[in-house]
Amino acid sequence: VRLYTCVVGPNPAVVTAFLLERGQTVDTVQVDITKGETRMPAFTAINPAGTVPVLEVDGTYIAESVAICEYLDETLPGQSLLGNTALERAVTRMWLRRIDIHFVQPSSSGWRFAEGLEMCRANMYVMPEAAKDFKIVAAQSLAWIDRLMVGKRFICGERVTLADILLYVFVEFGDRAGQTIDKELGWIAGWRQRMTARPLAGAITMPAAA
Amino acid sequence: VRLYTCVVGPNPAVVTAFLLERGQTVDTVQVDITKGETRMPAFTAINPAGTVPVLEVDGTYIAESVAICEYLDETLPGQSLLGNTALERAVTRMWLRRIDIHFVQPSSSGWRFAEGLEMCRANMYVMPEAAKDFKIVAAQSLAWIDRLMVGKRFICGERVTLADILLYVFVEFGDRAGQTIDKELGWIAGWRQRMTARPLAGAITMPAAA
Repeated sequence: VRLYTCVVGPNPAVVTAFLLERGQTVDTVQVDITKGETRMPAFTAINPAGTVPVLEVDGTYIAESVAICEYLDETLPGQSLLGNTALERAVTRMWLRRIDIHFVQPSSSGWRFAEGLEMCRANMYVMPEAAKDFKIVAAQSLAWIDRLMVGKRFICGERVTLADILLYVFVEFGDRAGQTIDKELGWIAGWRQRMTARPLAGAITMPAAA
Repeated sequence: VRLYTCVVGPNPAVVTAFLLERGQTVDTVQVDITKGETRMPAFTAINPAGTVPVLEVDGTYIAESVAICEYLDETLPGQSLLGNTALERAVTRMWLRRIDIHFVQPSSSGWRFAEGLEMCRANMYVMPEAAKDFKIVAAQSLAWIDRLMVGKRFICGERVTLADILLYVFVEFGDRAGQTIDKELGWIAGWRQRMTARPLAGAITMPAAA
């Protein structure tokens, strides 16, 4: 397999964090999104959505970070970050979707339609007047997650999963990019400390991604 | 297992369509969302997001339609609607996420913040001034999918998958709820005919869900 990725941006960092936590490496090809390489024909032939990361497997190209991580989880040796049973995987996937829809998407839209507007305008339909609302939705969702997590060590209980990785990466990127995380969210604060101590945190703290 | 579901709304219909296509049934409990039952404490104790469907498995509650379908796919006998190999499942999950983020979410937001506004206002942060933009994004995304599908029979090629079910349910509901599908989208038109001929289409055509 070969991973087309980039040292900036949260979506590539999700796969990087996943690989760090699993202690695995794969061949990588760096794509420079700051030069618009993901929007050039050579790349959109690989991923018509024009996004990284993309995983090449036997001539097939898999886009979307969570789909890539699920594939790697199924095929790499070591401890699963989805779960060891169908029920554990179901709980992980429920949380992955809740985090994606309620936090990752509004947080990303909030950034794309405000701080990232000039970069994003050429590539998508933008809603700049809605940026503030998206940021409010993201912040409210994080407070909702904070309340639901009381008594748990990680999102799905005692085990670290891809759901933790997805939330952590977008929380850390958001916090550094105009969506400061509310320090009053006590569970989130403690969980960020637990996450920062793990191998996966290398995907956030590496200088180029900061 | 026991499925908490409802005869109205596209998300319950995704799981219904999945079960029809697999030729399987599970015990169901009907929840009346029109009476606000999903927002009552007895139900939010099961799913704090206040949504159906929810699948109960040995006292654990799984929410989110796609997570439920993945669980059923792993545990029920018969032909998988995710894929038979890790790579097939990865392709399906890539398309599931693209369809969810680019079409299902903006289409749903377009409805919730316009036709569904009075019903949704009490349960979520609403963005009524953005409803029109969400509908434009959904329509543009469907045209994008239409262009990418040329030459394929179903979303992932020759095999019918959960990605087809997700898109089909939201296309059909959207078409009946103020987001008429552009007849010029030739691939979508042919694919809707192929989908309508399948068992899964029963989830759309049953009178209560129309």
